[in-house]
Amino acid sequence: MQCSTMQQKLAGRREAKAAAQKACAGVRVAGASARVPVSTVRQATSSVRAASRATSVKVQATATVEKATAPTGSLSSNGAGTRVMIIGGDGYCGWATALHLSARGYEVCIVDNLCRRQFDLQLGLDTLTPIATIHDRVRRWGEVSGKHISLQIGDICDWEFLSQAFTSFKPNHVVHFGEQRSAPYSMIDRQKAVFTQHNNVIGTINVLFAIKELQPDCHMVKLGTMGEYGTPNIDIEEGYITINHNGRTDTLPYPKQGNSFYHLSKIHDSTNMLFTCKAWKIAATDLNQGVVYGVRTEETMADPLLLNRYDYDGIFGTALNRFVVQAAVGHPLTVYGKGGQTRGFLDIRDTVRCIQLAIDNPASKGEMRVYNQFTEQFSVNQLAEIVEREGKKLGLNVEVTSVPNPRVELEEHYYNAKHTKLVELGLKPHLLADNMIDSLLEFAVAYKDRVRHELIKPAVDWRKTGVKVNTMGAAVAQ
Amino acid sequence: MQCSTMQQKLAGRREAKAAAQKACAGVRVAGASARVPVSTVRQATSSVRAASRATSVKVQATATVEKATAPTGSLSSNGAGTRVMIIGGDGYCGWATALHLSARGYEVCIVDNLCRRQFDLQLGLDTLTPIATIHDRVRRWGEVSGKHISLQIGDICDWEFLSQAFTSFKPNHVVHFGEQRSAPYSMIDRQKAVFTQHNNVIGTINVLFAIKELQPDCHMVKLGTMGEYGTPNIDIEEGYITINHNGRTDTLPYPKQGNSFYHLSKIHDSTNMLFTCKAWKIAATDLNQGVVYGVRTEETMADPLLLNRYDYDGIFGTALNRFVVQAAVGHPLTVYGKGGQTRGFLDIRDTVRCIQLAIDNPASKGEMRVYNQFTEQFSVNQLAEIVEREGKKLGLNVEVTSVPNPRVELEEHYYNAKHTKLVELGLKPHLLADNMIDSLLEFAVAYKDRVRHELIKPAVDWRKTGVKVNTMGAAVAQ
Repeated sequence: MQCSTMQQKLAGRREAKAAAQKACAGVRVAGASARVPVSTVRQATSSVRAASRATSVKVQATATVEKATAPTGSLSSNGAGTRVMIIGGDGYCGWATALHLSARGYEVCIVDNLCRRQFDLQLGLDTLTPIATIHDRVRRWGEVSGKHISLQIGDICDWEFLSQAFTSFKPNHVVHFGEQRSAPYSMIDRQKAVFTQHNNVIGTINVLFAIKELQPDCHMVKLGTMGEYGTPNIDIEEGYITINHNGRTDTLPYPKQGNSFYHLSKIHDSTNMLFTCKAWKIAATDLNQGVVYGVRTEETMADPLLLNRYDYDGIFGTALNRFVVQAAVGHPLTVYGKGGQTRGFLDIRDTVRCIQLAIDNPASKGEMRVYNQFTEQFSVNQLAEIVEREGKKLGLNVEVTSVPNPRVELEEHYYNAKHTKLVELGLKPHLLADNMIDSLLEFAVAYKDRVRHELIKPAVDWRKTGVKVNTMGAAVAQ
Repeated sequence: MQCSTMQQKLAGRREAKAAAQKACAGVRVAGASARVPVSTVRQATSSVRAASRATSVKVQATATVEKATAPTGSLSSNGAGTRVMIIGGDGYCGWATALHLSARGYEVCIVDNLCRRQFDLQLGLDTLTPIATIHDRVRRWGEVSGKHISLQIGDICDWEFLSQAFTSFKPNHVVHFGEQRSAPYSMIDRQKAVFTQHNNVIGTINVLFAIKELQPDCHMVKLGTMGEYGTPNIDIEEGYITINHNGRTDTLPYPKQGNSFYHLSKIHDSTNMLFTCKAWKIAATDLNQGVVYGVRTEETMADPLLLNRYDYDGIFGTALNRFVVQAAVGHPLTVYGKGGQTRGFLDIRDTVRCIQLAIDNPASKGEMRVYNQFTEQFSVNQLAEIVEREGKKLGLNVEVTSVPNPRVELEEHYYNAKHTKLVELGLKPHLLADNMIDSLLEFAVAYKDRVRHELIKPAVDWRKTGVKVNTMGAAVAQ
């Protein structure tokens, strides 16, 4: 569907807040009757359906809690009239964000080249959760919410495609999730290292040119990563640091040290963006996001066809998601090395709120605003201990084991990263309390028949990244 | 010629120092009789030949000075048995370096895709000096010096090519000049911004993989730029800075702020290299070079076919080279904006010595050593004043004019960049004394009939970098 058609359909809808509430109500009854396409449910269809229904029921309770704790102010703002392009809107964070914003009245256009699904096909991986095609997702969202999401399938590295998407949708904000986002993937072999840096860096340059030339007032919200900072022996600030040196002072970009070709690509993006903000007066917000966990957001849990992906494999699975699945299936939790590696974490329900906060509080023209987007920091050992304790409460036999660290990183280090700016804007974090782990574990148990044990172990060794193309090896080697 | 053939030819030559001296003697008499290919001398062939002869005579005097001031120690070391691959060996710095090292007994392999010549064809530019083809250059060098330089024409972004070049030559050091090196070129249009970042970043990644997989003991000498640092309000250190922050201390990569897609690409390279030094134990030296001026080195002036390029146009011409040509032809010296922009500068005769110092004092495995490679710092106004004063002594009518700054940069700022490490290793700088400017001016006067005035003015406006392909516009617009 063309964006112009969507604009016509949306014209006149200005009671977005009320509509969003209505959508959520509709969503809750729609779950049980939804058609799940055969193609997306490859195994155990009936049990998945049952699980979806069970989860759907649970969502109602969760949604009630959401309402009680939902922050007031900008997070409940009426997004009507605000046009948000979400690049990478079919991915883990992107899909949840697209629905979150659409439900709140923002006019959303998803741009995606579907490469995340292609990676799964390429490497023999699969999400724990059965996910619908992006076309079915968007169609179903329209049915249950009454909201239209525009969809543009294509590659932002292809300027002809991106410029047409910009020209037709005319975004006020572009949220850029559209990058290869796995550190291990970028370390599989030379080709994938090159792909990652080319795809991420050139795609972002194209977005910057699209803003400059086609939509100069468009605000860019770019997903970076806390991993850009590495693990310095001093406090990590939000993007910039004031340095006193030889009697003089300046505030400069915080020194970055990435630990994979993926993390490095995000550093390059930030460096490029800062230049264009200065030279072209672009308005940008760079979100250095921590490790995201969880799968439930109000919208994605509202219908089986809206279900988000959940990665637990050694390449795309993030630490906590992987531990939870390991606990559910009786696989030892695989701590890499000493386990003292400390990182920032956040619930995916906070990811979507942070994006909304960034949109509702845009940077000025010429400014690159930087937020550290996480809510709590944990060491890998701490995460394993929490999952072990909570798993045992559920009667699961959880063991923790150390495996040789496939990465090159400090396993014991100082870590103190600031993350106050989003809280100051109104973020009320979902903390990793016991009941969060609990619901995550129940979720993983519900889908455990879909778990493929061979995908869990570390798949890529940083020291062995070679030049030989290693397509299947990533999933089945070692 | 295959490298293996070259190895055979070079086998047994172990009196390299004596041979180098013999070569230089031979070089001085060979100049007058050299054949200059018609294709490289497009205009004023006879006057160019005369000028070449005149310059050749001057070189003898210069060479005598060289001998008297040549630093002792590592710079006169016998390079025999040391295999150096020079990527970008057909370019301005690369060609001078290739001959400098070859003359001192190093076994040199030039790798080049000839893109620098292609840029001139693409944009309608030309070097002030008539330069021979790389094939004629290498052949002539063999005739006058008795030294063989191996030649591999191809693109390092093409892994198949690069890996074969590495496997056949087996370098002990790879000197990587092989990048698009013009800030204005990278700001012509979107395509050239993307080309610059792709070409530079991916090429360097490929070199890092080649070292890791094919030649793990090979030391990488990478050309960065002082422009990576931008113009911070604190002293610029050599690569790293020790930061005291909230009661803790760490030494981190110096914060970088590039001011063009070119400068940014070099920052990305440095960031990628630091990671691979840590993760793969690569040994690398990153040379943040200042603005290079001059055209004469002992070897390139020894024969017309060995003459180096000299760029004075608005895209590839660096500030001092451009001012000197402007003075020679009676064009006002075009200072961009207020002219308070201060940068580090060095003579090309010091560039080649710095590279040798970096090779002779390699980084350890796992270390990324960083040197700031320049000898003096000047503001643009200071350069213009020097050229004006010296030009008037030669009877030239030199005017200085300010033109609107096509770049986005601070025009008045603090600037104090450290550059002691190469001096500690033995560098004896050629300073920009009056006689240096004098000889540069005489050189420009000798070739002034080849100057095309329309190429001198600023060709690319940072604020106007657009998405429309701007091939000819770079040379003829405005």
